[in-house]
Formats: sequence, C-alpha cells, structure tokens
Amino acid sequence: MERILSSKISESTGKTAKMCGWVHARRDHGKLIFIDLRDKDGLTQVVFVPSEKEAYAVGGSLHPEYVVEIEGEVNARPDNMINDKIISGKVELLAKKISIIGTAKEIPFELGTNLQIDTYLDNLPFTLRDEKAQAIFRVQSVVIKAFRDFLNSQGFTEFQAPKLIGDDAEGGANSFNVEYFGHTVHLAQSPQLYKQIMVGVFERVFATGNVYRAEKHSTSRHINEYTSMDFEMGFIETHEDVMKMENDFLAYTIDILKKECAKEFELLGADIPIVPTEIPKMKLREAQAIIKEKYGEDCLRAPDLDPQHERWLCEYSRETFGSDFIFITHFPITKRPFYTMEDSADPGYAKGFDLLFRGVEITTGAQRIHDYDTLVRSLEGRGMPVDNFSFYLEAFKYGMPPHGGLGFGLERFTAKLLNLDNIKMATLFPRDLNRIDVLLSK
Amino acid sequence: MERILSSKISESTGKTAKMCGWVHARRDHGKLIFIDLRDKDGLTQVVFVPSEKEAYAVGGSLHPEYVVEIEGEVNARPDNMINDKIISGKVELLAKKISIIGTAKEIPFELGTNLQIDTYLDNLPFTLRDEKAQAIFRVQSVVIKAFRDFLNSQGFTEFQAPKLIGDDAEGGANSFNVEYFGHTVHLAQSPQLYKQIMVGVFERVFATGNVYRAEKHSTSRHINEYTSMDFEMGFIETHEDVMKMENDFLAYTIDILKKECAKEFELLGADIPIVPTEIPKMKLREAQAIIKEKYGEDCLRAPDLDPQHERWLCEYSRETFGSDFIFITHFPITKRPFYTMEDSADPGYAKGFDLLFRGVEITTGAQRIHDYDTLVRSLEGRGMPVDNFSFYLEAFKYGMPPHGGLGFGLERFTAKLLNLDNIKMATLFPRDLNRIDVLLSK
Repeated sequence: MERILSSKISESTGKTAKMCGWVHARRDHGKLIFIDLRDKDGLTQVVFVPSEKEAYAVGGSLHPEYVVEIEGEVNARPDNMINDKIISGKVELLAKKISIIGTAKEIPFELGTNLQIDTYLDNLPFTLRDEKAQAIFRVQSVVIKAFRDFLNSQGFTEFQAPKLIGDDAEGGANSFNVEYFGHTVHLAQSPQLYKQIMVGVFERVFATGNVYRAEKHSTSRHINEYTSMDFEMGFIETHEDVMKMENDFLAYTIDILKKECAKEFELLGADIPIVPTEIPKMKLREAQAIIKEKYGEDCLRAPDLDPQHERWLCEYSRETFGSDFIFITHFPITKRPFYTMEDSADPGYAKGFDLLFRGVEITTGAQRIHDYDTLVRSLEGRGMPVDNFSFYLEAFKYGMPPHGGLGFGLERFTAKLLNLDNIKMATLFPRDLNRIDVLLSK
Repeated sequence: MERILSSKISESTGKTAKMCGWVHARRDHGKLIFIDLRDKDGLTQVVFVPSEKEAYAVGGSLHPEYVVEIEGEVNARPDNMINDKIISGKVELLAKKISIIGTAKEIPFELGTNLQIDTYLDNLPFTLRDEKAQAIFRVQSVVIKAFRDFLNSQGFTEFQAPKLIGDDAEGGANSFNVEYFGHTVHLAQSPQLYKQIMVGVFERVFATGNVYRAEKHSTSRHINEYTSMDFEMGFIETHEDVMKMENDFLAYTIDILKKECAKEFELLGADIPIVPTEIPKMKLREAQAIIKEKYGEDCLRAPDLDPQHERWLCEYSRETFGSDFIFITHFPITKRPFYTMEDSADPGYAKGFDLLFRGVEITTGAQRIHDYDTLVRSLEGRGMPVDNFSFYLEAFKYGMPPHGGLGFGLERFTAKLLNLDNIKMATLFPRDLNRIDVLLSK
C-alpha cells in the first residue's frame, strides 16, 4: 500500500490508507488513545480503540518522536470536531495496524515551546522540526528557487563560483585563512571577481552559494557564513538596468510566495510585502536631507548610512511611497569597492545602490568599471597590489562590455521577509564567533 | 532600438537591427571588411562597405575582442553563401553605425586554438570564451538545474548546507583546516551529516554546493574543490529506492539535455548517453567474478574497485546490457562510512552502491543507519570519538525514519558526459595542488 501524506489524506475519506511519520503528541482520553502524527506536510490525528487490540497495545507504548507506519480507516470528523488548525483537520485515521520503525529517547522539551535562542541553537536537529522553523526554511527554499528561475527566464546562465581564493581576496582583514598544501589561501567573501569574468563568457550569469565574512561582531544581523545570491549582466546602459532587474526579480518572487507560502506567512505572523512596479529611489544626499528634515539628525557628511538611518528611510518610504523597499544610490566612490564605476555626471559618487527593506540593507549593487586601464588606475589609486589581480584583469585586457550586478544575502532577506528578529533564526546551521553547531571549546 | 542576439537575428531579415558583442575575428577582402561578431548565443557575420563611410572607418580599426554595438541592415545571404556552422548563417549584417564600447589589448592566441592544458588554465578569463568551453559549462548549468527541478518535482526541499565544520568532520586527514577566531575548523567534505539531520525536518532534501578534499594526488579525475549534488530521502525500504530515484533523475536529465543541448554535444563530439528504464546492477562480488572470467584479473578479495576494474565493468555493461551506466552494490561494510547500513540479509556487506558511468564512479549512495544505538555502536566500533558527533546524533536520539541518499560530483559527471579527458576541463576555475587561478608561489 502506498503511503499517503497529511496534505492528501482527506482525499481517502472512507477508505483504508497507510500513513508514516513522527508521533508529534499523544493524548489519552478515557479508553481512547490519540496521537498527532507529523509528516512533511503537517499533522493528522490518529485514534487507537481497544477493539483493535494489537494496534491499541502498540499505541499505548508510543512516545513523542517515535517514527511509525500506520494503516487504518480514514473517517470524516463530525462538523463540530473539524480542526482547522491542521492540514488534515476534516478527517482522522482509525488505526488498524501499526509498526514502530524508529524509536526516540525522552525529548528535552516539546516542539513549539518558546525557547531562548541558545537552547534553540543547541538542539537544532530537534528544534528545526517545529512547524515554525519548517515554515522559515520552506520559504527560504522558495526564494532561492525563484531567484534561479527568474534569472534563467531572463537569459542568465548559472555558474559555479570557487570559494577558495588566492591573494586577490577582497578586504583581507575580513577573510578567513585556509591552510592549503603549505600555502595560506582565503575563503571567498563574494563571487564578485568571478562573475565579472563570466560576463565575458555568457554575458548574463548568476551564482548561489556560501560566502564568508570573518567579522568579529556578534549582532542579530551578522553571521560568518551565509548564502549569497549573485548576478551580473553585460551590455547595460547604467546601474539602473541592474536595479530594474532586481525590481522584477522581487516582484516575481513575491508573486510566487503569495501562491505557495501564504500559510507559512500566516503561521509566522508576517505580511507578504508589496513590490511597487518601480521601487522608489533617491541619492544618498537626498536621503540624508530627508533624515535631517524629518528626523532631526544631521548626517549630511556621512559616507554611509547607519542602521538607524536605514530604519528611518524605510519608515519614510512606507509612509510616502507605500513601499517596503527603497533604493539609495550614489554613495561616495571612495567608500565603494575598487571595481565600482564613478558617475561621470555626478563626479565623486558611484553608479551604485543599496536596496533597503524593512529597515535594513539587503543588496549592494553597481555598474562596474569595464575598461582595463581605468580598472588598473582604480587599484593603484587605492594602493592595492595590481599584480595580485592579474588573473581577474585578464578578462578586462581582452574586451569587456559595460556591466553591473548585485549580491543578495538569502538569510538576511528571509529574516526580514518573515519579521524574524535574529538572522540566526533564518540560517539553518548558523556559524558565529562562538558556535559551529556546538559552542566552540575555549 | 533593442539589441538582437545572433540566435534571433535572422528573424529581422530585411529590417534594421542593433547587435552587440565581441569582435571574434576580422577578415579584409579587397575593399570589404568582414567581422564575426560574437554574442552569448553565437556568431553573426557583419560586413563593412566603403559607401558607409563612418562605419567603414571604425570597422577598419577593429581588433579581436573589441566590444562593439552595431546598427545595420539584416540581409539574407544568397543560397550558396549560407554558413551552417554559425547560428545566424542565413543572414549577414550590413553595418551602418558602429560604436566601440570596450577595447582590447592584442590577444595572446586565437580562441579555438588547441592549447596545452596549462596555457588553457593560465588564461581562463580569455579561454573560457571559446565556444567549446562555453558549451561545456552551458551543459553543466543544465545538469544542475535538472537535478534541482527533478527533485523539487519529487517533493524534495532544498536546504543550504554549511561548509565550515567542527570536529565531526569526516576523514580528518583529507580535510582542509580553517583558522576560525582562534580555533581550527574544517571545510566540509560533503553535506552528509546535515542532510541526514534534515531528513528529520523535511523527509526529502537536497543540497548543491562546494565540497573540499585535501587529497594530494594530482590526476585527471581529482580536484580539491568541487560541486556536490546531494539528496537524502526518508521512509525508504532499501537502498534500491535511492537507486531508483537516481535512475529517474538521470533519465529526466538526459531527456532535457537532448532537447536543450544537442548542439553542444555535437560541437564537442560527444554522444548523449542512454539511460535504461532500469540501470543494470550487481553485487561487487559478482562484478569481481566477471572481471576474473572475462578480463583474467583476480580481484575477488579486493574491498573496492580499481580504476581499471571500473573501466572493464562499464565496457561489460555496454556490451551486455547496452547501458552506459551500471550500479555496483554490496561493498564490504568496513570500507564504507560509519553511517552506512549493513545488509542483514548479506552480513558484512553494505546496503549501498556506486554508480559507474563511462569508466568511472560518479555516485556513492546507501541506506543509512537510523537507529541511535546502532549508530553509536558503529562509531565506537571504528574507534571514532562519539562525543564529537553529539550534534548529529541528536537527530537520531529523537526518532529518525529509514533513509538513504547519495552524492554526485557535478564536474566529474560533466566531464564523462562530454568525453573530456581531464576533469579540469569541466571545472570552471579548478583548484589543485599547484593552482588557485594562478600557480601558487613556491
């Protein structure tokens, strides 16, 4: 007999069916034993009655997280017993036959318990089974799929970016060192240089994968290993072509989330955001003037936005434009990476942008320098060792089109989408200053 | 005017069109100047005539790899001038207007030149632009997409596996060390332990991403960083359920490759393999008996297959079953990882398999131990420190279903699919003993 999942079991009402899953909870009511059976799609109530002797005996020995296979009758529940909170709430399974296919030790606490984050993280192999954790990572899997599907539909080609990087690692201080056959190499902070090289090959490319930041601060929005979704596109006119592509990607993704993840958002008490056809945009200087005028803080000469500024601008965007998103463009070129293109129409400022969403920056993007000599001068101007970049520079030596792109942190975006207050709740197995699965020994 | 690509340009015959791309080659014939313009989809011939004065002057200044934008008239070629070798071979573009949007230094050699592998690797930002390299990595992008699409269609959920691993790293000697805030941690050799944990969360999961092997041998089939495609599925009966899933994935993928990549296979002179409805399978001992009988080598007591054995078995499979693939099952349990399940019907042997394809092993898979106590005994029996695995073991403490899965090396599979004689040709930016983009300094 083929196994049926909780999401489909009501289709077998009146018939015999086989279900498999975990004992989520057990309740004894007089002579009846009830269990909530949990499978990948949700819960189903199973009832054991004394007249089904063998099954009843096994039912009485069940503990939470036992893994079982049950055959029985699928019965409609009376109208007043329908449970809308579970996916199979219109039916229950009357157990006729059961086998225990996996046992469990006594659980440390019930799933769904409100836990301190350290307890949650200490017990991820168990706590991730909670429906809220499942919902978070189901949404995350839909977002990364939407990213790839959308870009494939726009003529982008996926490529596999290396993570072991030589001396051309960006920002040395923030990179982790790896012992590599007697050499010291680094973990990639982004696939940036490779995706630019790949524009020379496929024009439009994307990559998804882990990147690493050896940042020592431990905040609710930093992790040391995260998933970066990156794209880069050739033959653009300006950085606004990149912004347009991101805008369209977001609209596409939100549309998919509405269709596929409405339940997950509801469970987590999060609103699915609105993506305007054209996300509002302003230069950093305009944003700073608004902050001064509206919030009274003078940051007009700051080269970047503080977290508080980002929160204010998102509030402003929501109130003024009805948008959860806002692009801030034209940061000072000196504060952007060496490969960023300066806006000749606005000297000193970059043809680049940050995208803010619900109070934080979720993307940094830009048009890049595509002329070899300009790029070499930019490296030299920053006192960076041009020779270390010879591999990367070869792409530019042999002809590169105007191009630009962006990077997108999957975990941070997931956290903001779902209103989670700590990025670690949106990172499956977060690595931080003190933890790689378990606390690092002192 | 919107840009048109080589693949679509013949649809504009008789009209004005804009094209962008690289100067792939230039030929001067008398007073006419011809260039092959290369874009992401292929080549288009462009002709410059003296009567179009301005365009002609620029045309005369073009060198290989210059990036240009050209407007002109799309003209049908006479029948005897049609060039089937290029995608736009029925037409040519008569240049009316051209601008150079990126220049290039003198190229070191022409694209398409037969190069020694070191020269190829030294110049990847340039050599990857060759149509054969493009074809290889286009096929690769289709394979990894097919993997995800197929598994999504089978109810699998994607997850992001961490690559920074603590003391539970499998096979310590072969793992790279990372300096991590004063601790030594490791680069993952596979997402194995995490995907088993995730079976407890989503039942069926997959992950794609980089993995690392600190193996010192430099052969045509080893690289130190590669892309692993992994899945793991719960509620199986035996390892054969995993083999069936792989068989179906391969059939699906080959079907897509036939539809989308026939040109790439043709260009590379490779045959698209045949996937039987049921890939032939045999136990290691049967395979060894065949080797002895047919090829005269007695390896009956060997615990594993040598490369030569793998080649023979593939030859045998092709001759006997007409299959490019063959499963070899039941390796000695002592030679398989600690989490592998022993076959109680064939004690001493694993419920696991290798998949051989065109002479090499491309997958290792198995049913895993799902019982906590059995798993702890397996670790102890191998003298492995149980405490180091406490995080992983927590999944098993709290109930796990029978499950199994496999891992698949994207680059090795790509190489075999396309009959490339070195895996480095199927690895975009290969890392080996001596090279991370450039040769590692001594």
